[in-house]
Amino acid sequence: MSASEKIMQRIEALAKISDEPGKITRIFASPAMRRANKLVAQWMREAGMKTRTDAIGNLIGHYDGEKNDAKLFLLGSHLDTVRNAGKFDGPLGVLLAISCVDHLHRQKIHLPFAVQVIGFADEEGVRYQTAYLGSQVLAGRFNKTNLRRRDARGISMANAIKRFGGNPAKLSSARLNPKQIIGYVEAHIEQGPVLEKQNLATGIVSAIAGQTRARISFIGRAGHAGTTPMSQRKDALCAAAEFIVSVEKLAKKTNGLVATVGEIAALPGASNVIPGEARLSLDVRHEKDSLRRSAHLKLKNVAIQIARRRLLRCDYEIVHETAAVNCSRELSRLLGQSAKRGQKRLILLPSGAGHDAAIMAGITPSGMLFIRCKNGISHHPDEAVKVEDVQIALEVLNDFLLSLGKKHGRAQ
Amino acid sequence: MSASEKIMQRIEALAKISDEPGKITRIFASPAMRRANKLVAQWMREAGMKTRTDAIGNLIGHYDGEKNDAKLFLLGSHLDTVRNAGKFDGPLGVLLAISCVDHLHRQKIHLPFAVQVIGFADEEGVRYQTAYLGSQVLAGRFNKTNLRRRDARGISMANAIKRFGGNPAKLSSARLNPKQIIGYVEAHIEQGPVLEKQNLATGIVSAIAGQTRARISFIGRAGHAGTTPMSQRKDALCAAAEFIVSVEKLAKKTNGLVATVGEIAALPGASNVIPGEARLSLDVRHEKDSLRRSAHLKLKNVAIQIARRRLLRCDYEIVHETAAVNCSRELSRLLGQSAKRGQKRLILLPSGAGHDAAIMAGITPSGMLFIRCKNGISHHPDEAVKVEDVQIALEVLNDFLLSLGKKHGRAQ
Repeated sequence: MSASEKIMQRIEALAKISDEPGKITRIFASPAMRRANKLVAQWMREAGMKTRTDAIGNLIGHYDGEKNDAKLFLLGSHLDTVRNAGKFDGPLGVLLAISCVDHLHRQKIHLPFAVQVIGFADEEGVRYQTAYLGSQVLAGRFNKTNLRRRDARGISMANAIKRFGGNPAKLSSARLNPKQIIGYVEAHIEQGPVLEKQNLATGIVSAIAGQTRARISFIGRAGHAGTTPMSQRKDALCAAAEFIVSVEKLAKKTNGLVATVGEIAALPGASNVIPGEARLSLDVRHEKDSLRRSAHLKLKNVAIQIARRRLLRCDYEIVHETAAVNCSRELSRLLGQSAKRGQKRLILLPSGAGHDAAIMAGITPSGMLFIRCKNGISHHPDEAVKVEDVQIALEVLNDFLLSLGKKHGRAQ
Repeated sequence: MSASEKIMQRIEALAKISDEPGKITRIFASPAMRRANKLVAQWMREAGMKTRTDAIGNLIGHYDGEKNDAKLFLLGSHLDTVRNAGKFDGPLGVLLAISCVDHLHRQKIHLPFAVQVIGFADEEGVRYQTAYLGSQVLAGRFNKTNLRRRDARGISMANAIKRFGGNPAKLSSARLNPKQIIGYVEAHIEQGPVLEKQNLATGIVSAIAGQTRARISFIGRAGHAGTTPMSQRKDALCAAAEFIVSVEKLAKKTNGLVATVGEIAALPGASNVIPGEARLSLDVRHEKDSLRRSAHLKLKNVAIQIARRRLLRCDYEIVHETAAVNCSRELSRLLGQSAKRGQKRLILLPSGAGHDAAIMAGITPSGMLFIRCKNGISHHPDEAVKVEDVQIALEVLNDFLLSLGKKHGRAQ
């Protein structure tokens, strides 16, 4: 069996480990996560790694470097999932990393740095509505007030960590020492359609896009749909529609910008009543913060202008904002060199979704390798990746690790 | 106390009769409707009328004409309401009619025709989701399959009629003989803002607008809001937004047309997911059927074109269609003459909402007098009418009845 076939087999095995029967759902510190960690730890050990679980529940496999005091290079992704998830989002990156180490181990190669493979405990944030718990702890960016959050059953995060076998009081001890780390690379499915459209198995991530999320309400006046002349209306949904058209128009003409209205509600919401209020969400992302911010400001002004012209009120609230994170140029360069060997062309693309790499980039140079997924579908049971693409990704990562080894002084 | 003050007092008395404590809700054949009919019948008798309740539950007061074999002229409106209704929608028309007869009775005037005041049993259709039950029975347009409908508690319409004291087997005997009827006039609050804007107490209804109601779905492709470039999206909500803007634009430039999108849903409906489907309602009304139909056809084509251009699917279904009903020119002319005496200007306006008059027009010339209501609000506890406007409406109707009497041969 080829290494990529083995990865696909393991993907299937992990897909059977779920908190919800009949679906793939693995949430932070759950029974399914315990079983997943156990199984993955076994695979890590088979690949020559020593394993441990840290205070928050990250699974960490350690493969020694040439020397005892070698620095660390980190590979990984997350083992938790969304509810009713696909098989690949998260696990694929962990399994590819294990396979890379296995490749070294079989050839008895040790690099000038130790390799650690991390299965992050919580990237999706399903249980406590706060994502990246695992990488935040390793990066020393965990906010302790999170420990008081309660899940849907009322169990506090502190309690969940304890029950899982972690130690909520010692999260800071799980922090990595940035000085000891060379870098972090995460392989992940693209979750978008760009690689498929470009007919490429893998792509190098240039940056993880920053995001502005806003909630907007247009408030007009409800009225009878039959008896209120058009000239006397204050139709909030018409204002929202005009805004949505403007959002799409601006995003289409701004290279690399994505802007989405995903939620909308018209109130009171009856076919014969003019909407008195329309509420909508706005999600704006770009790999360049300045561009995202200026685009978002333009859109906010558009909303305000529409409301003013129509004599409506506009309530506008930014509910979430994250800065873009640039991937390490050096790691991306090395990944790109490796990728070029396996495929004819190379593309750099931003990641529109967030990843643990965005957190890890706060303490160490970080890079990402994207793998083509079918129709760009993710967070859905239909998520699919071809075994041939997994093979190419594996070759890229194997080659990359050796290149990085050379760079850090390993004899050819 | 003036006649209009008395009407306002009676409006308050009726407002206390409800199927839901603390709100005004009187649904078809309910205990509240029984009490309302009883109270209104008493007022009818005080105004010199003989009263009866017909097989469906319409309350009918009869005021004799000069001769025993005189034809009938009908006045009225409905006594049922929507849930959590205002005080005026329906009852005002019945109380004005009773007051007109009282006016004749006090002066011992009998006209060349008998006057019947009808308190219709069901105009709003709350209980069985089928409006105009009362007028349909009188007009011989009642569909007997309705009797099998069940309300929210499982009570069939036939049973409800029986319990109310009616006779579901004899609905056809309640039918009016069109040859015996001169016409029907209904006074009703405008339920819109036109009279208020024009600073007029009353207006004459030119026609009851026809209506086309459609359900439209745009079906595109869901996707990740961060990872799907604008150029690769099939955003169903953007298509819907473009459509809504077009609906408003067309309606605004078409005199007398109203077109409304009152309901909208984006699926799956998450801020970080591109909507794969958008569903919306469309309500188009105009007093001229040809104009409504051509406008609706244009809008349907716009929807199809938008979908085609965006490579989406568009599902388009007409769920309801009613033809416009013209008011009687002769009755409107007489009403208009009477109205001009009480106010400086006269306007003719279409009714965008449906009324019993639209059903009655099927068997007899029918006219409507609209009364200004505050902010055009209706179907809401905030519904309000000024006593001065009630007085003007009463004078218009009193004058109208005398004019009609003259026309039918009453000596001056």
